[in-house]
Amino acid sequence: MGFDPGYSARKFTSVGTRPIRPDGVDKVTGRARYGADFNMPGQLVGQVLRSPHAHAKIRTIDTSKAEALKGVKAVITADDLPDLTDGDSAMYDILDNCMARKKALYDGHAVAAVAAIDARTARQALKLIEVDYEVLAHVTDVDEAAKPTAPVLNDTVFTEGIDPRPDKPSNVAKRSQYGHGDVEKGLGQADFVVERSYKTEQTHQGYIEPHACVASVNSDGTADLWVCTQGHFVYRQHCAQLLGLDVSKLRVTSSEIGGGFGGKTHIWAEPVALALSRKAGRPVKLVMSRDEVFRASGPTSATSIDVRIGARKDGTITGATATLRYSCGPYYGMWAELGAMTAFACYNLENVETVGYEVLVNRPKTAAYRAPSAPMAAFAVESAIDELAHKVGMDPVEFRILNAAREGTRSSYGPVYGPIGIGPTLEAAKAHPHMQAPLGKNQGRGMACGFWFNFGGQTCTDLNIDSDGTVSLAVGTVDVGGSRASLSLVAAEELGIPYEQVKAVVADTSTLGYNDMTDGSRGTFSSSMATISAARNAIKVLRERAAEMWDIPVDDVAWEKGHAVAKGAKHGNLPSLSLKEIAAAAANTGGPIAGHSELVADGAGVSFATHICDIEVDPETGSTRVVRYTVVQDAGKAVHPTYVEGQYQGGAAQGIGWALNEEYIYGEDGRLQNPGFLDYRIPVCSDLPMIDTQILEIPNPNHPYGVRGVGETSIVPPLAAIANAVSNAVGARMTHVPMSPPRILAALEAEKAD
Amino acid sequence: MGFDPGYSARKFTSVGTRPIRPDGVDKVTGRARYGADFNMPGQLVGQVLRSPHAHAKIRTIDTSKAEALKGVKAVITADDLPDLTDGDSAMYDILDNCMARKKALYDGHAVAAVAAIDARTARQALKLIEVDYEVLAHVTDVDEAAKPTAPVLNDTVFTEGIDPRPDKPSNVAKRSQYGHGDVEKGLGQADFVVERSYKTEQTHQGYIEPHACVASVNSDGTADLWVCTQGHFVYRQHCAQLLGLDVSKLRVTSSEIGGGFGGKTHIWAEPVALALSRKAGRPVKLVMSRDEVFRASGPTSATSIDVRIGARKDGTITGATATLRYSCGPYYGMWAELGAMTAFACYNLENVETVGYEVLVNRPKTAAYRAPSAPMAAFAVESAIDELAHKVGMDPVEFRILNAAREGTRSSYGPVYGPIGIGPTLEAAKAHPHMQAPLGKNQGRGMACGFWFNFGGQTCTDLNIDSDGTVSLAVGTVDVGGSRASLSLVAAEELGIPYEQVKAVVADTSTLGYNDMTDGSRGTFSSSMATISAARNAIKVLRERAAEMWDIPVDDVAWEKGHAVAKGAKHGNLPSLSLKEIAAAAANTGGPIAGHSELVADGAGVSFATHICDIEVDPETGSTRVVRYTVVQDAGKAVHPTYVEGQYQGGAAQGIGWALNEEYIYGEDGRLQNPGFLDYRIPVCSDLPMIDTQILEIPNPNHPYGVRGVGETSIVPPLAAIANAVSNAVGARMTHVPMSPPRILAALEAEKAD
Repeated sequence: MGFDPGYSARKFTSVGTRPIRPDGVDKVTGRARYGADFNMPGQLVGQVLRSPHAHAKIRTIDTSKAEALKGVKAVITADDLPDLTDGDSAMYDILDNCMARKKALYDGHAVAAVAAIDARTARQALKLIEVDYEVLAHVTDVDEAAKPTAPVLNDTVFTEGIDPRPDKPSNVAKRSQYGHGDVEKGLGQADFVVERSYKTEQTHQGYIEPHACVASVNSDGTADLWVCTQGHFVYRQHCAQLLGLDVSKLRVTSSEIGGGFGGKTHIWAEPVALALSRKAGRPVKLVMSRDEVFRASGPTSATSIDVRIGARKDGTITGATATLRYSCGPYYGMWAELGAMTAFACYNLENVETVGYEVLVNRPKTAAYRAPSAPMAAFAVESAIDELAHKVGMDPVEFRILNAAREGTRSSYGPVYGPIGIGPTLEAAKAHPHMQAPLGKNQGRGMACGFWFNFGGQTCTDLNIDSDGTVSLAVGTVDVGGSRASLSLVAAEELGIPYEQVKAVVADTSTLGYNDMTDGSRGTFSSSMATISAARNAIKVLRERAAEMWDIPVDDVAWEKGHAVAKGAKHGNLPSLSLKEIAAAAANTGGPIAGHSELVADGAGVSFATHICDIEVDPETGSTRVVRYTVVQDAGKAVHPTYVEGQYQGGAAQGIGWALNEEYIYGEDGRLQNPGFLDYRIPVCSDLPMIDTQILEIPNPNHPYGVRGVGETSIVPPLAAIANAVSNAVGARMTHVPMSPPRILAALEAEKAD
Repeated sequence: MGFDPGYSARKFTSVGTRPIRPDGVDKVTGRARYGADFNMPGQLVGQVLRSPHAHAKIRTIDTSKAEALKGVKAVITADDLPDLTDGDSAMYDILDNCMARKKALYDGHAVAAVAAIDARTARQALKLIEVDYEVLAHVTDVDEAAKPTAPVLNDTVFTEGIDPRPDKPSNVAKRSQYGHGDVEKGLGQADFVVERSYKTEQTHQGYIEPHACVASVNSDGTADLWVCTQGHFVYRQHCAQLLGLDVSKLRVTSSEIGGGFGGKTHIWAEPVALALSRKAGRPVKLVMSRDEVFRASGPTSATSIDVRIGARKDGTITGATATLRYSCGPYYGMWAELGAMTAFACYNLENVETVGYEVLVNRPKTAAYRAPSAPMAAFAVESAIDELAHKVGMDPVEFRILNAAREGTRSSYGPVYGPIGIGPTLEAAKAHPHMQAPLGKNQGRGMACGFWFNFGGQTCTDLNIDSDGTVSLAVGTVDVGGSRASLSLVAAEELGIPYEQVKAVVADTSTLGYNDMTDGSRGTFSSSMATISAARNAIKVLRERAAEMWDIPVDDVAWEKGHAVAKGAKHGNLPSLSLKEIAAAAANTGGPIAGHSELVADGAGVSFATHICDIEVDPETGSTRVVRYTVVQDAGKAVHPTYVEGQYQGGAAQGIGWALNEEYIYGEDGRLQNPGFLDYRIPVCSDLPMIDTQILEIPNPNHPYGVRGVGETSIVPPLAAIANAVSNAVGARMTHVPMSPPRILAALEAEKAD
């Protein structure tokens, strides 16, 4: 349709303002409907039987007693989800994770499920299912699992990315490599080298809302799924494939979402609920408990990372390398690869090399978590950078400014950067009052940088102009962080009407074209692009209608500030027509007025942030208190600044939890010991200071308004910023996240011992 | 978009076949969700207090005791629905009918409503509301109400359409007139004249599903409405206006519908539910009881009609006139006018005149019922025509063929006909074996013709091609009689794919452009036109994508049988690309593929039918049995013949009930005496023979496939066909519908007495 996605400078009227959020009242009054707030007449309760073993062969499953229990309407095992993946190994892994096929691969792996008339009956039925396990040796630690002596999870996996292929199966599932130049030569030119190993523990996204869905499969091959997800179109694709349904016959409606952060981009219990409904012939509601969410949804990788960086006396980095081992649960993806790609992305390096290894462990499948894999890599690299700056004798911020990537830099993962924000965020941090604030006793200040790619992808919107001139905007990217407000602002901006006259909804999969997920910080970037395109298509129709109402050529009609305006002296006397007036006349000028857009949003702009953190450490207990925290990040263009600030603060808050407290703790038996918010402690309000934010706007050249994604980058620097702050406070380098009191005390002890 | 709505002959692949209905499994398994099958967390039960008086001034309403009852969350009166109609008298009448403002105008008129935590509390609360009525004289009979001495319902109503305006208010609210030529001159040329008066009683559509909705109004001006309706976009417009909401802020979702037949084109309790929710701050579910449906939704007009028709010896009608009085409840519309327009529409008349009068009575507001107003006019006219044929000495079918309208005839209501089906249906009826079948003792045969305009109007569809090549079709006309199946056939036809690969859904008001209601037999006519347009737009995109995949000009790509085909010798070696292949590549060729359409479907083709009925009358009891019934009707093009036959049979069945049994019975107190299916008896299966159908296809020149509306015309002839059959069976002319046993016995007595 001739849509130009390129940036052009303009003065904004709506975009950049801070109207109240359209979902606010619904949410504070409890009226918003989340995954568990939907019911269908006659629905059953679904529950899942999970493996108590970290690694076990499933010899047989006897469901007969459960099936005989009164009130039980269906019992399923992997046999009820036959393999329809046709050689698609990624889909096979998803299927196997949803319902173990031959082996239980982690504590919590689904092995069977029931649908019953109520929860009590379902629980009883689960107890009646008899699974004959052959318990196998297991491994949960990423470094242990990488050893040749470790129990092998999957004997069909031979390290991918090594030529020739190894002749023995291994938990090291994949090797990936990035970089350019000659690292050893570069390091040889260095006056100072820092070489260290780092470790991070596995964390969970910690969304408040557990996974929940209601599935209804009809005998005619149609189905409905109500579900809490970050991407109902992707859930539809995956579930349709696994269940053998036509894509169009599965209607998926996304609920409001009580947090996802990447964890709701993967399917978990949804195919199970669908299979139960198919077998029972009734709708099935399946809500995971908190215990199940921890044990059997997708946490992050635990990592083990080695870094070497060298610099000359003048501060120039001459060479940098990292080896990154990422646990990925029993199925491999590209977790270490993302770490390898992002590790040095902030810097302008002549010689750089990163190598990533995916490592299979008997833990839940690793899932995306906000800028997946980047925070761990940044923790290692930014810790080493900080240490190196001290060695060189430069201020850490000056050291980073000197080495920062800029427009034209070849990034460590390949592409050459356009206009980017790492330098400006560092300059802004340097100039920030936070940097000059005095520090108290036992307090330290740290800083760190972070990078995220941001994604684009397929996106559709429909924009319908209603008879009173208000606008219904149907979008397909789930609103996880305010996109309905932002997209309404964008539609209002284009059409030239007030924000209050636009109502955005997230359409279900049957009423809108395919949308990729809300992930990769792509929601507002891509859907705003599609909204701009749809609005411009609507304006074309509005101009045509005005031309018809005036009986003048459409080329003589311009669209200005929400009005059709007749151009040229010959139409001088025509008063402008408002959108409302044109809408009111629509029935007589050709019918309803709409604009549509289906596009692939290319060119998501890369995003950078610099964080500053002051921390106080109690040297006796090792406990920490974040005293002050500042986020400086490039938004490209902040459509709704309050939401952007919220994203900055949210990322920092999650990063603080990850840095200081959160971790999966496995026992020797391979079972998760803290699957609940009492023992897995995420930060609450009283744990955090007010997090300051500063929005920079370096326009993304590939978006009409210059928008970049903003959601993820903010979680990348905190692990390192806090580690640097703690190190400065206690005088000992922290190399293991989370920096819980015992680890800090241990570091202090080790420091004393040196 | 250059869409040509004109008919062009073609060979159909999908259209005209009879696949199984997509809503069938849902409906027979009970999984389909009707108006009352939806619930929202925290919802309250809404109930309505209704006037026990046919006509009463409301002096005061004291709600304090009800409000004080534990569990009552809101009590509302007209004060809670302030008048926002701004001089729009039609909307004011709707408002006043939803909640009486100054006077209760019929038995059952809403005067207050409550929302409470459960039905029992709500019922108790209704009893605690104290209404101080001043009871006024009332009138319920159409002829009585038209008399100058009748109690006047509305003293601001002076007969509209009379010049000069009468100086006294009257229940005769409006006069309308149609026709051409000189009727008195024409009648003067007649050799035979029939002059008679007829009466029909008020009937209800008798839909099985009562009105039901769940309303939720937020304090931020947004609202949701789940409702059983024939037109959720129109409900949205009306409710938004009455509640003072932006149109885009009210999201209306239509449930499955358990019958509507016109009765669910008007709003009834929906604004009340919304106002209750607004006041209570919680969702409110409101389901009307059967008693309420009868007393306070919208039945048909009762009518009183005088007819004079004259013909020459050769059978040519020389003049025809009718005076039609239609009751319209307390608010006037165009019920008599529709009767005046349709009365003689089947015939080619030189001299014709009809005059209609809307008459206010203390009965519920008249609502649309399947070809509204036409069956009563046809009853009168077709009875007189039958009598006249006998007088002339011609076979009634020959007499009608001689006088039938044809292409080029100026219709009695104005327009000149294009190609039409009245002649062909008469010829087909004449040739039908039914006409030759022997009649038994006490049996008579009757026939009659019927006409309906059919509507067009505003229509939108979105057609999205999913990644596996199956198709999601979002339509906005509520599926009352199989339109999802029909529209899927149309999409399959255009795209050249199997019917099974299309899934149609009725989209809610937030995700699709405005659609007029499913009324006027417009659903399949208009939405199929929009579907064809959307599919052709999608094919344009498919061709573009194929051109890109092949790297050839798009003009060299044709679309044939579901495939892109490269045209011309120079592309001779390119194998065709299927829709599925193009869909699978969409992410790499520009994103999701869709076609959209917003249009005004003009030129709905007029529709004609001829019915034949054999009836047996028990001369001792006056009871009747329909022995055989045949419907011949022009469909233009039957998209899904089984559904078309269903419409033919359904209209005939409802007409049979109307003709023989159904009527509103009011007591002298002005109260309805039979508000239930035990006392208001609609025909059940055992009351009916198998109804034969014959579909004729005279293409509508204004639709690409020639489609005309089919839903309504089938209810127009039955009253007259049955009256003619009864008259032939018993030898006495039946002039009062329903022809219940007492009325037949009375006619027999009168005949004997003559």
